[in-house]
Amino acid sequence: MIVAIDIGGTHMRAASYSQDEVKPVKYQRIRTLASEPGGFERLIGVIEEVWPQGETVSAIGIGSPGPLDPHTGFLLAPPNNPQFHNFPLAPKLAEHFGVKAFLDNDANLAGLAEYRFGAGKGHHHVLYLTVSTGVGGGVIADDKLLQGHHGLAAELGHIIVDPNGPLCNCGFAGHLEAYSSGPAISKYVLGELESGVKSSMKRDVNLSAKDIAEAAHQGDELAIKAFQRAGEYLGIGVASMLHSFDPSIVIFGGGVSQVGNLLFDSFHKSLKERVFHPRYLDGLVITKAQLGDDAGLLGARALAEMKLSL
Amino acid sequence: MIVAIDIGGTHMRAASYSQDEVKPVKYQRIRTLASEPGGFERLIGVIEEVWPQGETVSAIGIGSPGPLDPHTGFLLAPPNNPQFHNFPLAPKLAEHFGVKAFLDNDANLAGLAEYRFGAGKGHHHVLYLTVSTGVGGGVIADDKLLQGHHGLAAELGHIIVDPNGPLCNCGFAGHLEAYSSGPAISKYVLGELESGVKSSMKRDVNLSAKDIAEAAHQGDELAIKAFQRAGEYLGIGVASMLHSFDPSIVIFGGGVSQVGNLLFDSFHKSLKERVFHPRYLDGLVITKAQLGDDAGLLGARALAEMKLSL
Repeated sequence: MIVAIDIGGTHMRAASYSQDEVKPVKYQRIRTLASEPGGFERLIGVIEEVWPQGETVSAIGIGSPGPLDPHTGFLLAPPNNPQFHNFPLAPKLAEHFGVKAFLDNDANLAGLAEYRFGAGKGHHHVLYLTVSTGVGGGVIADDKLLQGHHGLAAELGHIIVDPNGPLCNCGFAGHLEAYSSGPAISKYVLGELESGVKSSMKRDVNLSAKDIAEAAHQGDELAIKAFQRAGEYLGIGVASMLHSFDPSIVIFGGGVSQVGNLLFDSFHKSLKERVFHPRYLDGLVITKAQLGDDAGLLGARALAEMKLSL
Repeated sequence: MIVAIDIGGTHMRAASYSQDEVKPVKYQRIRTLASEPGGFERLIGVIEEVWPQGETVSAIGIGSPGPLDPHTGFLLAPPNNPQFHNFPLAPKLAEHFGVKAFLDNDANLAGLAEYRFGAGKGHHHVLYLTVSTGVGGGVIADDKLLQGHHGLAAELGHIIVDPNGPLCNCGFAGHLEAYSSGPAISKYVLGELESGVKSSMKRDVNLSAKDIAEAAHQGDELAIKAFQRAGEYLGIGVASMLHSFDPSIVIFGGGVSQVGNLLFDSFHKSLKERVFHPRYLDGLVITKAQLGDDAGLLGARALAEMKLSL
């Protein structure tokens, strides 16, 4: 059996899986409470709750926001969770439970989960993108998760789509995330409102991508344009990704990707205009993620199974 | 033994290799004569000349300019070689010689050769870039050549570095090749001369990157700026490639990369400014290709060995 853990900003989830079942044998979810000490002890507790009695656990798989090092199992600087900064999570769990433990970041693992159990089943070359408060990527090339030398491959929100573009959350200019993430869409709208563009939306620092989507559905031109722009740059970024990875499927997860045509009409148009050879689009599937909140757990499980079979 | 073939614009090379030797047992080179009929027959002839007598050949490895399909072994539309358009090269050679035959494009194979026999030896994650009349890429991820679903992965000259940038040879806007290839550097200089920028260089459609490098070494400011610009965009492109592939080594081949500091001073500056997390640069080796004209042959050989061992 495999024990899987998903450490999110608000919840820690744990589950145990037997080999041929997608459904967990046991499942638990607790609040992360990142600002309170004792995070590692809470994590141990929730793992013990799902630990299968009288069965052999082969490995623990762990998903967490990055940056982290999948090769050493260290968390480096997970956002909003200072008690896990530079923390040897996988080695500590391996020692505590006496089994191997494997770690990777949430976007890589969501991609791996979709490849194994979701929209990407049967594909050998998968590009997964989550478009949410950030833009994250996961790539499966020839049935293998692309991790890279430092474990920092597929940071696809940070490819440069315009070297003179707006600043990304990470502080660098012109990244895809600075155009197509939820906060980037809000920032664009606020900037346009500030420069006097007319709209039904009010200048409010809390204006969310969801609010803007609602305004767009009411016909607000600025709101519509904001999503079109996000989709256009998403198409530019994905064109470069096709030229880099040549997948047979592109899978979109994350909240912003739920808005549908508002984002994807301009995405498809832009992608078609930017792909430099028609063969890239030959049979290419572009679709939504199928796994919901449990993608992280299933990805952590798939990581453990993948590492054990190497 | 392995028989390797490299089909270039001016020469076709063939060689036979025994398992543990980098030096070929036999080697032949003939002119490609792409405009004359009988290309396939000439190729058969040169292969027969290097075919080892009384030894078992396990496979033929073939390198050619793309686009091509490594999965089916078809050449699709090699530039300047119309007799090989949509030509089933690998299947035809396999049938003729009674052994397996494997095909991939020249940049992928030069990357594979550097990984196996050259600058990339001992690395598991390699990014190879050739900067020449075009910009081509080859990626080894976790000791495997990245080919992609259609065999079109790592077309890294065609990643978009500025969506509003100049047109690439392929007809699309803002590709890396449209900034950093030899013809792109020439085109930039000619444009600047046309708009009245002062220079020791004359407006001449045949002005080559080599001519411009010479002018730069004489202190010509426009010539210096042209290479600085090419290096700056090369840094932008490679930053995105690090974020995508996270290699432990970047290897530069191709004629333009021979100009040294003229290109690489601004490249290194730009790369450092653009990489969004310092860990990507941790231990990263940036170096020149070690294999010369025989990289294509050695790559074709490595491809055959790789495919046989799968």
